[in-house]
Amino acid sequence: MRWSKYFIPTLKETPIGAEAVSHQLSLRAGLVHMLTSGVYSYLPLGLRVLRRIENIIREEMNAVGANELFLPCLHPLDLWKQTGRDKVLADVMITFLDKRKRPMCLGPTHEEVITNLVKDYVQSYRQLPVVLYQIQTKFRDELRTRFGIVRACEFIMKDAYSFDRDQIGLKKNYDLMYGAYKNVFQRCGLETVILEADSGAMGGDVSHEFMVPASIGEDLIVSCSACGYKEGAAEEKAKEKPCPKCKKKKLASQVAIELGHIFQLGTKYSQAQGALFIDEDGKQKPIIMGCYGIGVSRVIAAIIEKHNDDKGIIWPPQVAPFDVEILPIQGAEEDREIRNLTDRCDADLTAAGLEVLVDDREETAGRKFNDADLIGIPLRVTIGRRNLAEGKVEIKVRSTNEIVLVNKDQLAQKVLEMTKAACVTN
Amino acid sequence: MRWSKYFIPTLKETPIGAEAVSHQLSLRAGLVHMLTSGVYSYLPLGLRVLRRIENIIREEMNAVGANELFLPCLHPLDLWKQTGRDKVLADVMITFLDKRKRPMCLGPTHEEVITNLVKDYVQSYRQLPVVLYQIQTKFRDELRTRFGIVRACEFIMKDAYSFDRDQIGLKKNYDLMYGAYKNVFQRCGLETVILEADSGAMGGDVSHEFMVPASIGEDLIVSCSACGYKEGAAEEKAKEKPCPKCKKKKLASQVAIELGHIFQLGTKYSQAQGALFIDEDGKQKPIIMGCYGIGVSRVIAAIIEKHNDDKGIIWPPQVAPFDVEILPIQGAEEDREIRNLTDRCDADLTAAGLEVLVDDREETAGRKFNDADLIGIPLRVTIGRRNLAEGKVEIKVRSTNEIVLVNKDQLAQKVLEMTKAACVTN
Repeated sequence: MRWSKYFIPTLKETPIGAEAVSHQLSLRAGLVHMLTSGVYSYLPLGLRVLRRIENIIREEMNAVGANELFLPCLHPLDLWKQTGRDKVLADVMITFLDKRKRPMCLGPTHEEVITNLVKDYVQSYRQLPVVLYQIQTKFRDELRTRFGIVRACEFIMKDAYSFDRDQIGLKKNYDLMYGAYKNVFQRCGLETVILEADSGAMGGDVSHEFMVPASIGEDLIVSCSACGYKEGAAEEKAKEKPCPKCKKKKLASQVAIELGHIFQLGTKYSQAQGALFIDEDGKQKPIIMGCYGIGVSRVIAAIIEKHNDDKGIIWPPQVAPFDVEILPIQGAEEDREIRNLTDRCDADLTAAGLEVLVDDREETAGRKFNDADLIGIPLRVTIGRRNLAEGKVEIKVRSTNEIVLVNKDQLAQKVLEMTKAACVTN
Repeated sequence: MRWSKYFIPTLKETPIGAEAVSHQLSLRAGLVHMLTSGVYSYLPLGLRVLRRIENIIREEMNAVGANELFLPCLHPLDLWKQTGRDKVLADVMITFLDKRKRPMCLGPTHEEVITNLVKDYVQSYRQLPVVLYQIQTKFRDELRTRFGIVRACEFIMKDAYSFDRDQIGLKKNYDLMYGAYKNVFQRCGLETVILEADSGAMGGDVSHEFMVPASIGEDLIVSCSACGYKEGAAEEKAKEKPCPKCKKKKLASQVAIELGHIFQLGTKYSQAQGALFIDEDGKQKPIIMGCYGIGVSRVIAAIIEKHNDDKGIIWPPQVAPFDVEILPIQGAEEDREIRNLTDRCDADLTAAGLEVLVDDREETAGRKFNDADLIGIPLRVTIGRRNLAEGKVEIKVRSTNEIVLVNKDQLAQKVLEMTKAACVTN
């Protein structure tokens, strides 16, 4: 992809009102654009990151046997009345009357809709288990939107739902999802803290939160370094108290952002909505459910928050919008050797399956270097006259600042090797 | 993919209230599920078709230099007031006050939002042209929802927008899009009629509609077989009249469905919203715009409408949810040879890049054959004892009913050849 033909509107100045580093950088690097507070557009570069994260999630969901579908945003409010959650979620739910005077809402989550769907098809234990997921836009009318895409009114979630005939089946699917979640966050370059959590508005008994310690977080993790005890806390009450488990050390607390939450729901929804099946013993029973969410747009913010320096973003290779950026330094006059080498390297790497961005803009080398650091592509190939005079080209690793000079004829091969190595260690 | 692990809830009976063949078949083949009238979920098989169509569109959009982004569903109504379209589209627009008492709406289209976005970044003629597109959910509060996903309240559109410094640039991008649209529909297995059309609520002077003649259509195409004259008509008024162009023949009319519409918008939006740029001559001018829409969910309905028989859907190979279905006929006892050949064929074809569905359900052969015809995968491989006794396996082409018996050792190779041949002629 040629930068001159691609819409990457980088900004030199930090936009006013953006407190969090991830918010500042996502605006400056041309990842997102604010339409109004709490509502963001994904620009081409941001959409590329989103798609890469989505695909990691898809691979992990498919690997544990979940099937992807796509549910609507518009829900009849009557469905929510069946579970009483029209009231529980009234604070964040957007509701309206449609032209036929039907009360409708925009889905803040999809338990009711998926239960309604599965109920229409599943009658027998033979059809269970079923695990379904989607990656879709959700709506929550947040009064306090914060940190850009972290707490927005419109955001992208992966939500999965498991349907089982018994508790053993639920436990099995829950454990599979637990493992899949660990993989997803690890592949996104994020170290998560996993906490047993309160089930809140979802219902059910067992639930776990996947948290990433970061200053943009709105949750608190209280932990004891002696015994490894950890728990979530609503406010900073834990400091200087003894650990309830080992009684030895005092607890420390840290702020964290919640990226995933999984729940053993049980029969709350299936009972309220009449999603029943005939079991092997001939008896009618409510389907046993679990639900599993990841805040996809939040994951982007968390990645930026954990992977940046004073110059810009440092994308972990697996979620980077491009694998490599080629930066030809053109002088005043046209330099055919630089252009040909740029084209050949672009073609070779693209043919090898890499996503390549070529900064072919008529900008100063300084501006190009600054923008390269800002948008944070893992490898930067600089093709310039000085090194080329000795038959060399420079490869720079964004994360380590390591610089490698390679023979111009081995350029594509070396970039491929370095990309593969980085994705394996990531 | 194993059918036993995949959620394809086929229905034997035609659901009540579904008039159109495409609506009946999309429900029976387990492509979509109705949540409430005008609101549909895409089940796994339907989502696969949707993704294949989306990818064809992406390839054609990228080929003409359009950049993909992703805009929000929630819009501030104030933005729509700038162009006066809050009134023009009031009949179909879903509006509400958010928690901060801001008047908001759900986007029925995105001219205002994209103009607002481009305005924030583009100041100079050097930054033009820009062509942006998205594939996204749109909302229109239709009182008369019809034919399932054809006229729904929530539907998926591809919408593209071009921004140019002059009329020549607009014309060039318009012509590129015109060509891309022809490719998209042809690759989806649809023959379109292209009409000069009225610009309606969008504004601008020149526009073209891409129509597919089909009984579910709500538009009329009037045409003269002698001179090739064609025009769109709102109602059936044209019969028995002379053709205005050649005066020879009487006009015939046919019902058609609109799948695409492209517009030369000019400066309607840029002027109203102040999207201006400094031209080479130093003067400030409004950006010249075009917009280009495809009703993606509608394309699915049109494809089914044109490609079916009394047994079910006949997917054109390029948009089929799977490339090949393997149907092992298991007797009462386990047949290791059938199972092994099924597994090997699945593995070989998957490794070759095909999407393979294996109907491994414990159902009667009759049920499996009926379901195979219903969901309409282009090639069906039947592995059964009778043919296998002679070392043979049956491949059936869904579209022609052609049956080929091949040596079991050449199965994967033959399927690959037939798939490639079908995709080329498609």
